Amino acid sequence: MSNKVVLAYSGGLDTSVLLKWLSLKGFEVIAYVADVGQEEDFEAVRKKAIETGASKVFVEDLKREFVTDYIFPAFKANAIYEGRYLLGTAIARPIIAKRQIEIADSEGAAYVSHGATGKGNDQVRFELAYYALNPEIKVIAPWKDSDFLRDFKGRPELLAFAAEHGIEVKASTGKSFSEDDNLLHISHESGILEDPAYHAGEEIYSKTVSPELAPDTPTRISIEFKDGIPIRVTNLDDGREEREPLAVFTYLNEVGGANGIGRLDMVENRFIGIKSRGIYETPGGTILHLAHRDIEGIAMDREVMRLRDMLSAKLSELIYNGFWFSPEMEFLMAAVDKSQELIDGVVDLKLFKGGVSVLGRVSHSSLYDQEFSSMEIEGGFDQTDSQGFIKINAIRLMAHHAISHRKVGE
Amino acid sequence: MSNKVVLAYSGGLDTSVLLKWLSLKGFEVIAYVADVGQEEDFEAVRKKAIETGASKVFVEDLKREFVTDYIFPAFKANAIYEGRYLLGTAIARPIIAKRQIEIADSEGAAYVSHGATGKGNDQVRFELAYYALNPEIKVIAPWKDSDFLRDFKGRPELLAFAAEHGIEVKASTGKSFSEDDNLLHISHESGILEDPAYHAGEEIYSKTVSPELAPDTPTRISIEFKDGIPIRVTNLDDGREEREPLAVFTYLNEVGGANGIGRLDMVENRFIGIKSRGIYETPGGTILHLAHRDIEGIAMDREVMRLRDMLSAKLSELIYNGFWFSPEMEFLMAAVDKSQELIDGVVDLKLFKGGVSVLGRVSHSSLYDQEFSSMEIEGGFDQTDSQGFIKINAIRLMAHHAISHRKVGE
Amino acid sequence: MSNKVVLAYSGGLDTSVLLKWLSLKGFEVIAYVADVGQEEDFEAVRKKAIETGASKVFVEDLKREFVTDYIFPAFKANAIYEGRYLLGTAIARPIIAKRQIEIADSEGAAYVSHGATGKGNDQVRFELAYYALNPEIKVIAPWKDSDFLRDFKGRPELLAFAAEHGIEVKASTGKSFSEDDNLLHISHESGILEDPAYHAGEEIYSKTVSPELAPDTPTRISIEFKDGIPIRVTNLDDGREEREPLAVFTYLNEVGGANGIGRLDMVENRFIGIKSRGIYETPGGTILHLAHRDIEGIAMDREVMRLRDMLSAKLSELIYNGFWFSPEMEFLMAAVDKSQELIDGVVDLKLFKGGVSVLGRVSHSSLYDQEFSSMEIEGGFDQTDSQGFIKINAIRLMAHHAISHRKVGE
Amino acid sequence: MSNKVVLAYSGGLDTSVLLKWLSLKGFEVIAYVADVGQEEDFEAVRKKAIETGASKVFVEDLKREFVTDYIFPAFKANAIYEGRYLLGTAIARPIIAKRQIEIADSEGAAYVSHGATGKGNDQVRFELAYYALNPEIKVIAPWKDSDFLRDFKGRPELLAFAAEHGIEVKASTGKSFSEDDNLLHISHESGILEDPAYHAGEEIYSKTVSPELAPDTPTRISIEFKDGIPIRVTNLDDGREEREPLAVFTYLNEVGGANGIGRLDMVENRFIGIKSRGIYETPGGTILHLAHRDIEGIAMDREVMRLRDMLSAKLSELIYNGFWFSPEMEFLMAAVDKSQELIDGVVDLKLFKGGVSVLGRVSHSSLYDQEFSSMEIEGGFDQTDSQGFIKINAIRLMAHHAISHRKVGE
Repeated sequence: MSNKVVLAYSGGLDTSVLLKWLSLKGFEVIAYVADVGQEEDFEAVRKKAIETGASKVFVEDLKREFVTDYIFPAFKANAIYEGRYLLGTAIARPIIAKRQIEIADSEGAAYVSHGATGKGNDQVRFELAYYALNPEIKVIAPWKDSDFLRDFKGRPELLAFAAEHGIEVKASTGKSFSEDDNLLHISHESGILEDPAYHAGEEIYSKTVSPELAPDTPTRISIEFKDGIPIRVTNLDDGREEREPLAVFTYLNEVGGANGIGRLDMVENRFIGIKSRGIYETPGGTILHLAHRDIEGIAMDREVMRLRDMLSAKLSELIYNGFWFSPEMEFLMAAVDKSQELIDGVVDLKLFKGGVSVLGRVSHSSLYDQEFSSMEIEGGFDQTDSQGFIKINAIRLMAHHAISHRKVGE
Repeated sequence: MSNKVVLAYSGGLDTSVLLKWLSLKGFEVIAYVADVGQEEDFEAVRKKAIETGASKVFVEDLKREFVTDYIFPAFKANAIYEGRYLLGTAIARPIIAKRQIEIADSEGAAYVSHGATGKGNDQVRFELAYYALNPEIKVIAPWKDSDFLRDFKGRPELLAFAAEHGIEVKASTGKSFSEDDNLLHISHESGILEDPAYHAGEEIYSKTVSPELAPDTPTRISIEFKDGIPIRVTNLDDGREEREPLAVFTYLNEVGGANGIGRLDMVENRFIGIKSRGIYETPGGTILHLAHRDIEGIAMDREVMRLRDMLSAKLSELIYNGFWFSPEMEFLMAAVDKSQELIDGVVDLKLFKGGVSVLGRVSHSSLYDQEFSSMEIEGGFDQTDSQGFIKINAIRLMAHHAISHRKVGE
Repeated sequence: MSNKVVLAYSGGLDTSVLLKWLSLKGFEVIAYVADVGQEEDFEAVRKKAIETGASKVFVEDLKREFVTDYIFPAFKANAIYEGRYLLGTAIARPIIAKRQIEIADSEGAAYVSHGATGKGNDQVRFELAYYALNPEIKVIAPWKDSDFLRDFKGRPELLAFAAEHGIEVKASTGKSFSEDDNLLHISHESGILEDPAYHAGEEIYSKTVSPELAPDTPTRISIEFKDGIPIRVTNLDDGREEREPLAVFTYLNEVGGANGIGRLDMVENRFIGIKSRGIYETPGGTILHLAHRDIEGIAMDREVMRLRDMLSAKLSELIYNGFWFSPEMEFLMAAVDKSQELIDGVVDLKLFKGGVSVLGRVSHSSLYDQEFSSMEIEGGFDQTDSQGFIKINAIRLMAHHAISHRKVGE
Repeated sequence: MSNKVVLAYSGGLDTSVLLKWLSLKGFEVIAYVADVGQEEDFEAVRKKAIETGASKVFVEDLKREFVTDYIFPAFKANAIYEGRYLLGTAIARPIIAKRQIEIADSEGAAYVSHGATGKGNDQVRFELAYYALNPEIKVIAPWKDSDFLRDFKGRPELLAFAAEHGIEVKASTGKSFSEDDNLLHISHESGILEDPAYHAGEEIYSKTVSPELAPDTPTRISIEFKDGIPIRVTNLDDGREEREPLAVFTYLNEVGGANGIGRLDMVENRFIGIKSRGIYETPGGTILHLAHRDIEGIAMDREVMRLRDMLSAKLSELIYNGFWFSPEMEFLMAAVDKSQELIDGVVDLKLFKGGVSVLGRVSHSSLYDQEFSSMEIEGGFDQTDSQGFIKINAIRLMAHHAISHRKVGE
């Protein structure tokens, strides 16, 4: 069997140690760096991978595909976890894993490896995606590997190993918590943030300005949707317009971040049965989520909305838990796609000091359309129809009253 | 049969005309004014009812019961309609109807009457509650009554009738839309607001200051929950504390309104099959909803949350549609009550220019508790357990991959 | 406006009177007879329509389309109402309404009419389908028409009118209850059957022999599915085989009926808020439903099944209530179609004295396939993986135990 | 720490070897035999446990508690897995585990052990129940224990070990598959039954006679329910009556088995991600499930039924997967209990050659009650109310038609 392993590589301490460790174990290590929009000097990372022993390095720009094939479909489905979290980390994992498996296939590697820990969600998301895309793949997950765990009990051993093998360690950022950064969001968790009662200070945040420091004048934008997907964003104040998907989303991040939008502090339930506190910044996503909800409000049939909302909760759970590539996800997305066929229109929004609010909306696939309204008046119901509607809805309630009282009176 | 009718009376043009019209029809009209926290001169309303021909007037202070038996239970269930509307009007209807039926019973009235129109939700909510509480009650709903509709085609006929019968008409407020005001919220709809694209101006709002004009310094409060119910609110800046239910909710309204919190502009689906645009101000409710969600985040079991969320959507629909008094509502609330038994703790919040955000939270019925965490470390899972967990979750995905590829290859 | 009306005509007393009554009112009546597989002398019906005053008669053979576009899709979705009723009447209504609207369109008729009563489900199903397919259509529903109801209080007035206008009335069948017959089932209800405690006698049934009188030897058949649709039925005893959709279903009816299969006596909830007792005979459908469930058991992914089952309940309710042509039905069917892509295989069944049971099944899109099983052994999980799986699933439960006991101990 | 272990002991080869093996490892083994109604010579088992080295033996008669606290609650909830399986094995596991933990507590044992394999559901059900009831308990599961698995690769090693240590081995039953027997059902699986296409012969079955050999005359019984629980069963032919819970259920088994009722052959999805074929015999349960469904049909509110059915599916999954003792189960049962408050009445049934059918039913908490019906006539709806009901339900459909056609026409 091939001794090649494709390692998801970040350039940080953990995956650098892992790269060297795998190399010393006799693996040929192919480093794979996914660019999903995080702040990074990718050339430096490439160089470090080679210096640490990688036989090859792939730096893959996945940003546009991330927007069109992952972010937009998830937001089309109104995916939101436990009522609040916009799934910024979870949505990025499947695209990273998919490209990794593609590289393993093209390079003939039998193994893939990642540096996610054994108590988190990411290990699950990566590995479920690996297995779903290639059931024959072998996964090396050092933080669940007894050999690796014997050698490395914590950060001190990692630093010692790095020193020993000449792996350069960046000066500490001074941040006493961990982060995950991509185009959709940045998360902050663990360390000092583990205490759920701890009030996070301004120094935590990096993708949004503080609402207190945001401009004193609102920014007004509009977003146009076609089939539930944003196809245009316009700044109503200065007229700037974006239509290309990556540009649309990047611009939403820009105006959102500048207005302090998208901060969230919550305790969530991990797939791994424990609770964890996360702080998220999702500027563009927060705007997009609200705008999409709003255009659906005017353009979506009521009963479709009821059913879709039920499915959205399930779909969000699937994304969070790592089942992006699964038969049940395909099943749900078939219905979601159907539900978006009439979701067209424009939503006007106001951004101000951490808040997004809707100013108004227009949709041609809506009950508010002139043509339909007039039809409704002519051929539609008159007010007395309501009487029959109410009476018939009341039958069950009247019966229940009679039965309950009889039972009590027994 | 008794010719007494209990009329839900507001003192406005419509119900005053209705009072007189019923009186002229030969009914003995008992006027019933429900005080659910709206801005009103109740003594003036009482006087006007008598002058217009009422045989008796009941002005009923329902505010405390509204908070303890309607608002808190609904918020305990996280009731929110179509993802956004906190049901301010819908939650007030059942308590108004319930007291009206009680008065009809004690006064021996065979009839009740209300002034809600024939295209809205309120007629349904009132009448379903009437029938559910007393299946023998007769309902007089003038806006669905062909006699009344023949006499009164619109506002001009109402004004003419009022003039003819000496019914005093207040000077117009100048507001070209209609409102519903109570302790939980004020709604604004119809008239100029009917065009969903129309950007509502600052003059619409009355329960909240504009975020732009709200204080430049945040207000910090904490809310303590017991069994999912708020039992104490504390201003973390000045130390003010409220514990009595009505005082708790009133204070949340006060600090919420002062910080511009709780404005919402949305298009919603009425039970009566049409869409309508509403603008709502729910200052205290918006704070309470978020705080409750947050304390649940730390104190509620994950799978209970999944199931409860599914039921919350249904329960919200029931409240919106007028099924507060129904067997299915009792069914759902039995589960909701069960789910709240461990929902205890304190949430710290920041209120600032229209936004509410969570600063931190503490709960003794939580995974974060010291005692449990140590137990978890000793007897709990170690990281290698995750490997088996992932592998077993992957089995289905691997099978699906194999089967799908075989099918395609056929 | 055109004075043409397309009347759904059965040849019975009610619709014959209705035809004449409409004709006397000045309408040009086009009689429309839908052949959905009921026992009927269609030429006699055609003749009677003309004699009673119809300007034209359409006798439409809808049997094949009924099977391919209505029965098979519904059974593909496992549609079953309140856990038991296979929706035999409800599934036939949309196809009847659809052809009626098509005739109205092609004949330039502004009106359609039907003879369903005002307390049942069929009026709702017909009329919702009419409005969904042509919102401008005018519906004449005599049993909700105050003019008609004034003229005809019950059967005596209908008989008198028939006598007066020379409408031939068939000798009574002697059946003191009403029936609806089509390819999928026959229903029996009302009259003596209204008492839910009444034990229905053998004389009620017509599409199935009594289990007591069915053959003493079982019949063995197999059904082959492709994408969830039956594409072949084979008698394992005599080798007879059918592949054409209508022939497949007709043969299932034949062997089902001969073995006393598909009788059901239940009390169900009508859309119109009341309960009603129905007795149904669905011989072929009962076999098909079980066989489809069984092939799904082997070929469908577990999580897809969970979600699909949740949707099936909703979809069944939609069919029952008359929402076949609705946006929510399209939404659900998009997901159902997706779920059936791998539902291929053969199920062997035994039919005996009222019972259907599964003998065995084979599917190539299944975990049982040789090829997959071997893959599983090599790359799959070993038994120790279960330990981690269980431990991680137990974390929540352990936490709940700790918290509940602490709370109790407070 | 105590070296005592409470072993769930059956007297068979596996748990006898396990008993001795644990004893040789230095554990003090307390044998625990749960009598949940299986065919067994419990005195012989007790003797064998002592001979094999147990320090103590507990033979616990759990039959009555099994019926009242496990079977009846599950059937009250209509629990049925994947539409067909009545959960006979799954419902027995929690009661067995609960008593085992109680014995461990009272005996001061730190360990519990069971003989379930590492690919099945039972290991999960036992261990989740153990951990839920006592998070500090240590579980010894030999078929996931690497020491045990090294010593015992399969049956030959078990037999050799038994021979070596003088453990008596019963003559083989000749059954080439495994079984689980209790009061609720007997299951048959694995071995020759693993091939899902294999037609199981009559020799498989033991709790039911073959339908072909069942009496040629039907048996008629009635079951009375109170709050959804069967409180009386009566043979309508010979007048025999049972009222005590265990006697009621035992008698249902007797008449069910004699009439060949309750056989089921299906492929199901295990919690452990794989599919498995099981053959079940559940004579009394099959009758009870249908009767309960039927009494609900007449006595339960429609909307409560909709919601309950949704929850039943989830609840069945929880039972199957081993989450009987869990917060989510408590949550669901709170609602189920509420739903059964009016489920009173009597169902008459016919049992004949493998089939159960309903003959009729009576309930005093029903719409069919005389008193309510008359009320309905006076104060209720008249047929013309249906017109408004339909018109208002059609509004959405008309709008959708208009919008869809406009979109297509774009």
